[in-house]
Amino acid sequence: MTTTELLQSLNWRYATKDFDPQKKISTCTWQAIEQSMVLTPSSFGLQPWKFITVTDPKIKKAMLDHSWNQHQVVDCSHMVVLCAKSSVTDTDIDTWVDRLAEIRQVDKESLNEYAGMMRGFISHMDEAATLTWAKHQVYIALGQLMATAAVLDIDACPMEGIIPTEYDKLIGTEGSGYLTTVACAMGYRSTDDKYAELAKVRYAPDQVLGSI
Amino acid sequence: MTTTELLQSLNWRYATKDFDPQKKISTCTWQAIEQSMVLTPSSFGLQPWKFITVTDPKIKKAMLDHSWNQHQVVDCSHMVVLCAKSSVTDTDIDTWVDRLAEIRQVDKESLNEYAGMMRGFISHMDEAATLTWAKHQVYIALGQLMATAAVLDIDACPMEGIIPTEYDKLIGTEGSGYLTTVACAMGYRSTDDKYAELAKVRYAPDQVLGSI
Repeated sequence: MTTTELLQSLNWRYATKDFDPQKKISTCTWQAIEQSMVLTPSSFGLQPWKFITVTDPKIKKAMLDHSWNQHQVVDCSHMVVLCAKSSVTDTDIDTWVDRLAEIRQVDKESLNEYAGMMRGFISHMDEAATLTWAKHQVYIALGQLMATAAVLDIDACPMEGIIPTEYDKLIGTEGSGYLTTVACAMGYRSTDDKYAELAKVRYAPDQVLGSI
Repeated sequence: MTTTELLQSLNWRYATKDFDPQKKISTCTWQAIEQSMVLTPSSFGLQPWKFITVTDPKIKKAMLDHSWNQHQVVDCSHMVVLCAKSSVTDTDIDTWVDRLAEIRQVDKESLNEYAGMMRGFISHMDEAATLTWAKHQVYIALGQLMATAAVLDIDACPMEGIIPTEYDKLIGTEGSGYLTTVACAMGYRSTDDKYAELAKVRYAPDQVLGSI
């Protein structure tokens, strides 16, 4: 992709307020978006997350009550709920090392140093610090999701204004160790969305960028 | 960009360990990356961040001591330090509303409802909650930065293993209200980087994805 194309895509995107409820993301495109979520980078590759996509109209409607009535939830094509893993244990490290060894076809022992680094890393975090770290990783996923949507001409609306504990109940993750952190409505903008026509505003570059 | 091209880019990227110190990102490409950072979406558009890019070899060398000796810091072309704003005040909201009114050429009064929402939002957060929120936004920027680098064929290595307070001193942000949160080394992979050839590993899709 050229830099011009990239900037066109990033300027085209905006936090879509009105989705066209008739326009659905195709199965083929959705599978690619799911795959791009799977490919999101994370600290040590530990992927402390789950991404739950809601398309069931009844569940979307129930989520609306816990989303400050932001109707993107029901009008969008796919509603993604990004959840953070609330704890990371030695067993999780073992599972991850097993997976690495399996896919790379290497002995588990050859990964001992890496496993030791990960164990050291998690051992220095209490429960709160682990969740903070996991949420940071989830926000990487949100950033990548919005950027990849933009380059695919898919509209998105990130949503922090949700009640996570109520979402957990509705998407069936309550008590699973995965906590709703943030959501992203995805689909196609309505031709009526007046926000689509507003000039994009950011601070002047010299206010947010520095170089030395 | 097609879904196939996107997935090729995301599979091509990896956390680059060995950068080619001779290969620098061109000025033209770097300007586009900076512009893409400026365009990063944030909660309410409040952009609670600064992105400081270090290319000065002396400063990069000094940063190495506070980066667990990860030599990407010195070998990369551009070292980006992503900083979170530690507080958001009513004055910040006013500045942002002024900017919106100026660029969109509308009366400030027409933005009163939006300004009120933002004021309500920040008033419910204490200092710690504000910084947590700002850091989440910074991680959105990191996610977008890594994704945009990938689609531009630029290599990147996200770095959480840094000493933020020491970075603050070296990049000149100490006491400025902006706190080093995470960093990202950017440039071009060395042909010697054995990590570039390793199979990319993620958990099986059904472990991280769900749909209802």
